[in-house]
Amino acid sequence: MSVITELRVHDVRFPTSRMLDGSDAMNPDPDYSAAYVELRTDAADGLSGHGFAFTIGRGNEVMTTAIATLADHVVGLDAEDFLADLGRAWRLLVHDSQLRWLGPEKGVMHMAAGAVLNALWDLRAKRAGLPLWRLLAELTPEEIVDVVDFRYLTDALTRDEALDILRAAEPGRAARIAELEATGYPAYTTTPGWLGYSDAKLVALAQQAAADGFTQIKLKVGADLDDDRRRFALARQAVGDSVEIAIDANQRWDVAEAIAWVTAMEDESIAWVEEPTSPDDILAHAAIARGIAPIPVATGEHVHNRVMFKQMLQAGSMEVLQLDATRVGGVNENIAILLLAANFGVRVCPHAGGVGLCEAVQHLSMFDFVAVSGTRERRSIEFVDHLHEHFIEPIDVRDGHYRVPRLPGAGTEMHAASLARYAYPDGAEWSTGADSGAAPDAGAAPDAGAAADTDPAADTGRSEAVHA
Amino acid sequence: MSVITELRVHDVRFPTSRMLDGSDAMNPDPDYSAAYVELRTDAADGLSGHGFAFTIGRGNEVMTTAIATLADHVVGLDAEDFLADLGRAWRLLVHDSQLRWLGPEKGVMHMAAGAVLNALWDLRAKRAGLPLWRLLAELTPEEIVDVVDFRYLTDALTRDEALDILRAAEPGRAARIAELEATGYPAYTTTPGWLGYSDAKLVALAQQAAADGFTQIKLKVGADLDDDRRRFALARQAVGDSVEIAIDANQRWDVAEAIAWVTAMEDESIAWVEEPTSPDDILAHAAIARGIAPIPVATGEHVHNRVMFKQMLQAGSMEVLQLDATRVGGVNENIAILLLAANFGVRVCPHAGGVGLCEAVQHLSMFDFVAVSGTRERRSIEFVDHLHEHFIEPIDVRDGHYRVPRLPGAGTEMHAASLARYAYPDGAEWSTGADSGAAPDAGAAPDAGAAADTDPAADTGRSEAVHA
Repeated sequence: MSVITELRVHDVRFPTSRMLDGSDAMNPDPDYSAAYVELRTDAADGLSGHGFAFTIGRGNEVMTTAIATLADHVVGLDAEDFLADLGRAWRLLVHDSQLRWLGPEKGVMHMAAGAVLNALWDLRAKRAGLPLWRLLAELTPEEIVDVVDFRYLTDALTRDEALDILRAAEPGRAARIAELEATGYPAYTTTPGWLGYSDAKLVALAQQAAADGFTQIKLKVGADLDDDRRRFALARQAVGDSVEIAIDANQRWDVAEAIAWVTAMEDESIAWVEEPTSPDDILAHAAIARGIAPIPVATGEHVHNRVMFKQMLQAGSMEVLQLDATRVGGVNENIAILLLAANFGVRVCPHAGGVGLCEAVQHLSMFDFVAVSGTRERRSIEFVDHLHEHFIEPIDVRDGHYRVPRLPGAGTEMHAASLARYAYPDGAEWSTGADSGAAPDAGAAPDAGAAADTDPAADTGRSEAVHA
Repeated sequence: MSVITELRVHDVRFPTSRMLDGSDAMNPDPDYSAAYVELRTDAADGLSGHGFAFTIGRGNEVMTTAIATLADHVVGLDAEDFLADLGRAWRLLVHDSQLRWLGPEKGVMHMAAGAVLNALWDLRAKRAGLPLWRLLAELTPEEIVDVVDFRYLTDALTRDEALDILRAAEPGRAARIAELEATGYPAYTTTPGWLGYSDAKLVALAQQAAADGFTQIKLKVGADLDDDRRRFALARQAVGDSVEIAIDANQRWDVAEAIAWVTAMEDESIAWVEEPTSPDDILAHAAIARGIAPIPVATGEHVHNRVMFKQMLQAGSMEVLQLDATRVGGVNENIAILLLAANFGVRVCPHAGGVGLCEAVQHLSMFDFVAVSGTRERRSIEFVDHLHEHFIEPIDVRDGHYRVPRLPGAGTEMHAASLARYAYPDGAEWSTGADSGAAPDAGAAPDAGAAADTDPAADTGRSEAVHA
């Protein structure tokens, strides 16, 4: 037997705003960040579990505080027992009667629970000597549904219905594992499409994407209609007709504006319209979907839990479901979401990018192909070529496909040197470089006091803290 | 001119779990708490603005961290300019491009913005020498809509439609102010109905409530059907037929179970069924409303923003809208919610109780009566008789009515002595008493490490922090 002895949190931030990587209509200057958690045990194997919640800079210290609050729930537990029953881990972390007031099951506190759950799954996979997708693909249908919380789902998906889906997929598992290992899982790329990029950069990157074998790219839209029309036309010219082009509005519009804008784009070749409005607005997404048909609506990166996804499926709000590895309650809740999508026959094309999201989410799509939906048809995982070098096993995308990860674990472990260098605010990257992450963005800047005094991160006086 | 010089946060917790006050099916042992914020300026008047987010114990330090993160957005600003344009304050606090990733507009980060906004409204009302309800009731329709964010609302309520509602209510404002000052605003009481209370205590408190002039009481339900039937019958016997009895399930049920349970109660006199399921589940609430008609559904205390309320109104999810003073983005967003309710003709019966919620929310209902809906018909504010003594102006409830508050401000200022005594974990109440708030509840208790080491509050090492 071994015991979970420590929960260690790291505030890790990358100064991506200096390059305008990741800029879009709602996020002009993100600093890709991770509220990173590491679980250690006293086992002789020396293995530790790593997980994180992705953020875009300011407020990452709120996430690390929330994760630290969960230390009580895991430190001191028997690791074997706990890892063998990650449905119980979900209940402990998500159903704490006092903490759920801060959500329930949404926002900071829920993402914190997700980070800890993902770290537990990472540790379990490492102990099993398997990459997470493979560990999940080898669980029995009963073991899979045991980690899912069906509360609030039963009007759309019961435990028995989920078992039926999983059992139906069992016969082909081995063949699909072999297919995945041979050809990988399709990817699409957002790299050409950031709003902050010049037309020339957009065209060059779009041509490169087509040459690299991607069959879909995506453009950010929603700031200016004329720009969007021009950029879409340039991209179409650059990639030709055999590559699909999706657009992403990052929540810019109300219902009428979304329908009018997409209609004014005058191009039924649009692969999908992503996040046309508030991620909370199930009914507005459904109205927009009706208004822009046959162009599909895609959403999910900000959809905060399985109850919201369930309703979007019930209401016809989306044709493409974009789950995110760190927005919801970890692997457990993402399995619930994959099962819901399968039950409604909706395509899953995960959100990725940021830092570490590609590394984490590929495991979920591969598991879905092997053990849930059984298909890769018209499905792909977002790919953005940023910050992969900070991970122990960076994604391997070739010929427009994610190749299967091979190392044991969930893909979520960063190099210790990266954790140290990008630690906020004390790591070398921040203590010596331009401090673009400490102040609000220029458009919203108050006439500010002294930054050093009001810097929220200065309150905790640390970028790493141990809870043991 | 004066400048906002300081944002001070306090982690304040009351050990209510020792008494089982506030116990229900989802919240067995709450410690009513406030993540409390105080804004100071360099003005000669010495006035400060006070606001808070209500929580139920663990995690209150996540809220105080989130509030502290917002200090950058207000400290250093010109107080006169800023207070005169609280629509701008909303935009600065809610639309920060990096912080919104942590929501958007939900959970910890949104409640933190609400706490700061409420503190700004408190300061503005104090400077005007008016209680908040009266300040709001004297704004022009244009001034009122200027603090509302109509993004994501326009498919249900436009700025022009909101102006129409407010203009229609203008003629009767003076008469309704006089009515309010004469008779107050109706209250209903939850005091008898907590699950942790014995039958004898339930009966005695129900009789007392009727004797005190309340025309409605509320019982917590959802743990055991036989208990619920027995307790409802006892309460009915105790109060007679002229007092209404609502029931509150605190999110316990899925759709089918909710309909079956309420049907099995076999009593069409139920005034409303509150929070039958997940507060995120717009479609489930609507299905339950259809399934238990004519008994009304009530919800709102956990509904996290105006976009969710909008959809619940569009879908027919509720007949009774229970807004909460500190769940959403402050007074600004609650005005949006009152306007939505008025546009859909739905009754507003605010959630209150906890600590300070009664003091805060009464201002919103009174404003609604004077300047928005123009009616108190079948509307009442929840009343729970806990912890009022900690506020500068405790609510004054007599003959089943909230009497109008008279002191300038939003009702949200606590006594300095209370802030000090209940400061967590260093105040006298916690450093010397039983520490019931530091550990997870027994049902979920891990086999724990040393409490002092894993206590999340110990990380910040403070219950009060100044950001200047």
